[in-house]
Amino acid sequence: MPKAPASRQCRLRCLVNGELRSDIDILDRGLAYGDGLFETIAVRCGRPCCWLDHLDRLALGAARLRLPLPSPARLQAEARQLLEGIEVGSLKIMLTRGPSARGYRPPPQPQPTRILLVDGPPEDQGRGRDWADIAADRRAEQGVCVRLCDTRLGINPQLAGLKHLNRLEQVLARSEWSEPAIAEGLMLDAEGTLVCGTMSNLFLITAEGLQTPMIDRCGVAGTARSMTLRLAREAGLRVQERRLTLDDLVKAQGAFLTNALIGVWPIRSFAGRDFELSLLPWPLIERARTRLLQPESLW
Amino acid sequence: MPKAPASRQCRLRCLVNGELRSDIDILDRGLAYGDGLFETIAVRCGRPCCWLDHLDRLALGAARLRLPLPSPARLQAEARQLLEGIEVGSLKIMLTRGPSARGYRPPPQPQPTRILLVDGPPEDQGRGRDWADIAADRRAEQGVCVRLCDTRLGINPQLAGLKHLNRLEQVLARSEWSEPAIAEGLMLDAEGTLVCGTMSNLFLITAEGLQTPMIDRCGVAGTARSMTLRLAREAGLRVQERRLTLDDLVKAQGAFLTNALIGVWPIRSFAGRDFELSLLPWPLIERARTRLLQPESLW
Repeated sequence: MPKAPASRQCRLRCLVNGELRSDIDILDRGLAYGDGLFETIAVRCGRPCCWLDHLDRLALGAARLRLPLPSPARLQAEARQLLEGIEVGSLKIMLTRGPSARGYRPPPQPQPTRILLVDGPPEDQGRGRDWADIAADRRAEQGVCVRLCDTRLGINPQLAGLKHLNRLEQVLARSEWSEPAIAEGLMLDAEGTLVCGTMSNLFLITAEGLQTPMIDRCGVAGTARSMTLRLAREAGLRVQERRLTLDDLVKAQGAFLTNALIGVWPIRSFAGRDFELSLLPWPLIERARTRLLQPESLW
Repeated sequence: MPKAPASRQCRLRCLVNGELRSDIDILDRGLAYGDGLFETIAVRCGRPCCWLDHLDRLALGAARLRLPLPSPARLQAEARQLLEGIEVGSLKIMLTRGPSARGYRPPPQPQPTRILLVDGPPEDQGRGRDWADIAADRRAEQGVCVRLCDTRLGINPQLAGLKHLNRLEQVLARSEWSEPAIAEGLMLDAEGTLVCGTMSNLFLITAEGLQTPMIDRCGVAGTARSMTLRLAREAGLRVQERRLTLDDLVKAQGAFLTNALIGVWPIRSFAGRDFELSLLPWPLIERARTRLLQPESLW
């Protein structure tokens, strides 16, 4: 077994191509070029939430990047193995194009690397606010404060929507603030269009109904975003995916963020503008939260 | 020692934070987010070429990404250790923000991962055309055929110029063709401006002098590009960094590509347009090639 700090060794559970280990080949193209995809999945009662939605998105991404996809049965078996005894936490899946010789050109017959990694609950409250807050659901009830990031998203339709491993824009955006009171930062694209949060998708409540930015030029096709859109349509709400601006946000009646791990966070304030949480479509939000953080039943 | 296929184990020499190994921690942010930088350095006579230029660029990139930089002396000592007995090859340096807990936010005190990796000469001609061609310098003499890639570069001034680990655009572009006769693909940015090759920078010979695309919105600040610009200015040539289009290329008297491993490749043909190689500034090209592939003297 590879070396790892003791604190990590006891907390991490990881399978790399089915083998219990916590390292990968230095020649892996996931490291060299970010040539791969990932999923971050909420775990409740020892089961993943929205498992099939995540598998679907992984399959779509793999098709677009021409990555060979592991069988769903194998992924499920490995996830089961890792989740044994975990009540609350997260499961991360990474799928890379595997190791290759030097050069951008993908190998004609890639041997992909599949990584499943379970992050359990925090050992103490000090470790991370996020987990504690998820458990208490305080942010979901009281809403969050968000800021605008200076870092912008480059426009690239070929990569738009994918949850790929090229995430420097998000890293730079997230490094812009450290105040715990700010839960998320919103990002514009290179042309100034409002797209998403660093780790979440955005929804606005407007006089014309529920609106969310298009993700055809940049941004991630969040599984929580898709679920929320689906539930909103089922509920008969008017829903639009469109190009939005900061002005649309400021003029909106309300807004919320979605993410597979957090569920839904209403926005309480943004850049000096306070939002009246009572104007939000709470039945939709409650339903989305429940569905997003509901353990997979067929598991 | 970690497991690796026998064929790789005997060819690869690798140091991770000074330790001889060929794997990294699964939690490394280089893998998770491409949160890091790299350098690819030509090796001749057991010594790196343009070592100080590469160290300078690494330092600039590290400052922009706020990555702690290893000392030049340490990098040099480790490079020496790995290059022992290597005559011709390449040395790759990767510097990542190291392992961290889940989330885009950089750790306040990152423990960066530094990777040095030597790729020796090919074991046989079949392994890779590139090495054989570098050795014979045929492409440098006879020029190369290049194509236009459909994959475009997203515009992001914050990342522009950096040789960071987010390289999916280059991977997709390089996967567009497999004909050995095509040596490189040229890339436009999202707005249709001509920027670079998938792994090289571009220079045009025009009536107004030597021109190369600006790299303030996307593209990489190649060490070979900087060297070529410096040598051209020293030689009294008129040199411009500007926004270029495909039309500028088609109308140019000639064009060439630069890259730290290949040196200089004249473009013989592009999309049906043949270039007259005799119109190229051969004294500059020869001088750049010599300097780029000259082993560091103070080593």
